[in-house]
Amino acid sequence: MKVLVLGGDGFCGWPTSLHLSHLGHEVTIIDNLSRRNIDTELGVESLTPISPIGERIRAWDEVSGKEIKFINLDIAKEYDRFVDVLLDSRPDAVVHFAEQRAAPYSMRSSKTKRYTVDNNVTGTHNLLAAIVQSGMDIAIVHLGTMGVYGYGWSGSAPIPEGYLTVKVPTPDGDIEREILHPANAGSVYHMTKTLDQLMFKFYAHNDGLRITDLHQGIVWGTQTPQTVRDERLINRFDYDGDYGTVLNRFLMQAAIGHPLTVHGTGGQTRGFIHIRDTARCIEIALNNAPTSGEKVSVFNQVTETYRVRDLAELVSKLTGAEIVNLPNPRQEAAENDLNVSRDRFLALGLNPTTLSDGLLEEARDIASKYADRADRTKIVSRSVWRQGMEAADDLMP
Amino acid sequence: MKVLVLGGDGFCGWPTSLHLSHLGHEVTIIDNLSRRNIDTELGVESLTPISPIGERIRAWDEVSGKEIKFINLDIAKEYDRFVDVLLDSRPDAVVHFAEQRAAPYSMRSSKTKRYTVDNNVTGTHNLLAAIVQSGMDIAIVHLGTMGVYGYGWSGSAPIPEGYLTVKVPTPDGDIEREILHPANAGSVYHMTKTLDQLMFKFYAHNDGLRITDLHQGIVWGTQTPQTVRDERLINRFDYDGDYGTVLNRFLMQAAIGHPLTVHGTGGQTRGFIHIRDTARCIEIALNNAPTSGEKVSVFNQVTETYRVRDLAELVSKLTGAEIVNLPNPRQEAAENDLNVSRDRFLALGLNPTTLSDGLLEEARDIASKYADRADRTKIVSRSVWRQGMEAADDLMP
Repeated sequence: MKVLVLGGDGFCGWPTSLHLSHLGHEVTIIDNLSRRNIDTELGVESLTPISPIGERIRAWDEVSGKEIKFINLDIAKEYDRFVDVLLDSRPDAVVHFAEQRAAPYSMRSSKTKRYTVDNNVTGTHNLLAAIVQSGMDIAIVHLGTMGVYGYGWSGSAPIPEGYLTVKVPTPDGDIEREILHPANAGSVYHMTKTLDQLMFKFYAHNDGLRITDLHQGIVWGTQTPQTVRDERLINRFDYDGDYGTVLNRFLMQAAIGHPLTVHGTGGQTRGFIHIRDTARCIEIALNNAPTSGEKVSVFNQVTETYRVRDLAELVSKLTGAEIVNLPNPRQEAAENDLNVSRDRFLALGLNPTTLSDGLLEEARDIASKYADRADRTKIVSRSVWRQGMEAADDLMP
Repeated sequence: MKVLVLGGDGFCGWPTSLHLSHLGHEVTIIDNLSRRNIDTELGVESLTPISPIGERIRAWDEVSGKEIKFINLDIAKEYDRFVDVLLDSRPDAVVHFAEQRAAPYSMRSSKTKRYTVDNNVTGTHNLLAAIVQSGMDIAIVHLGTMGVYGYGWSGSAPIPEGYLTVKVPTPDGDIEREILHPANAGSVYHMTKTLDQLMFKFYAHNDGLRITDLHQGIVWGTQTPQTVRDERLINRFDYDGDYGTVLNRFLMQAAIGHPLTVHGTGGQTRGFIHIRDTARCIEIALNNAPTSGEKVSVFNQVTETYRVRDLAELVSKLTGAEIVNLPNPRQEAAENDLNVSRDRFLALGLNPTTLSDGLLEEARDIASKYADRADRTKIVSRSVWRQGMEAADDLMP
């Protein structure tokens, strides 16, 4: 299969590109390297020493004998060039990771709010318009987020995979309707993914586009069977207050002797998935794309759920790190339960990687190995959800 | 009240600006004149000879003694300048009409799809981010569309004003939840208004912004008590295939001896409102803005519903024009009923202008008066909703 991976240089995009190439697909990465530029803007680096994209691709060719192509292109800003790429490369599928993906970064300032909306919404819409314009039959697999659903909305009912059947009262009695699960975005970033959903719905209906939307949980881990084959293939490990995701941040904090930073009570329950499974889920989604005329196919891309404070305790037990509670910069419920349907990937053969599979130790060891690369002034998040909210100070200045 | 009217040079924006000025409010129009530029792009003009914005404002000053300010500014592209305008002018409210508003134009080409998304979504989000950044308490009144609901979705139940209470099944029995009415956009234009809704929901919740969203039907008529005071104040009358709205197009077609063009069976039922009532509804919405922390306040801005073929017959009876059926370029049900809740404006004192009030004849007379300005090659729409659909030829080449 010929696959374009938009955002293929990023945290999920890179290991997915390697996984698909390993499976024998013809992979072309399209990326504007914005994630590396944001590192520069924030004055921070991946804890792991990631190689430039050209070196990554050369290393992969050396160790695997397989070629990945790379095109430096901004899908939000270079529409005509992107259409030309589609017409030239004639892909069977596009995997779309090319969105600004940090909620705290999206709430940092007017500038980052606007960048997140403009980049994510324009990029996604350009992809849809370009495929229609090309007249080709190209499946889209898009990375969404569990955050589109909100938390605690549906009482004791599990969060369904995209669609919810509800009863609508009418003068003739209740009628059943299947709806997209109502959108309950918690940040500008999450909001853009709820806008994506409505654009997908329209283009699937109006133009018969074949679209899969994957509502992913919080990714943990760094390495996959491909990224470990050469240090030049190593994946990102974000530990900073904006881009670091909670479990990886705890492991890194423990590795450098920083307290584990829990925002609020830590009573938030979230869905998690290991980076290996992200790549496998994309593979499964590509092999099971909907047909033209079908509704958008939605999967929940989550393998386990944990309460944040329970994760902190798990990491504390593993490492001896202490736990501190910081003010919560988000507008969210202090505590929530989470019950997520995740039958679709399991039915299609996903064998989940869990926290008990020993990879927690692997992630801890990577954090330890590169601990000297950490900038301790970047660990605590400065982004707040609303003007005037309290931001924490550095704990280890 | 100090009011900024974004898009105040357009078909709804201009008479609303005059109405608010007439009532004694301090009105500043912000407009990038894009609607006039699109006329140039399409090679068409308003049937009525509209004056340049500077002349409009001078004429209003002459006949009323009231000053309307004008700032040529693109809210989607000149964010920093817009923030400065907010800080300088310190408005109590912003009325937001500054969106590309023609469904056929939004479906014309990749370029117009992309323009509609970029202009409408970026513009609306810039407005929200700018108000948050300003730190000021500014109410927003936004013009939405009945098209966010779709047609025929809710069986015999009337379309509610924004929110729908549904029953969600859970293991503990059904629970009631109030949701935004599910979005069922019929064009890229309508889709942008469904994205606006989700951005409003987020900013009302996260930042306490005070937002009113008005889901308007199809506007008919041209003149208001203010626009008739001087010919230089005359409002737009769009008759072309992209921007002309159905009832006005029929009246204009009759005036020049063109057949009345019904797309498909004409079995589509739509909501209608006279342009006078648009201005009154904005006034009512400004006087009844929600308080900070409340959910977005949604009104259905519709006074009557008609089936398109019944309107054609009404105009045919009034004028003797013949009716022709053209292929329908839209992806929509051939026939639908429409039952719309519209209690909120009635409860707040709106006294609706109906088709039986004699204004149909006024609109016919305006169309006749300026009939010689019509370009007969622009009457039939060339925009189709999907590649390969049949577009009609001109009927009077």
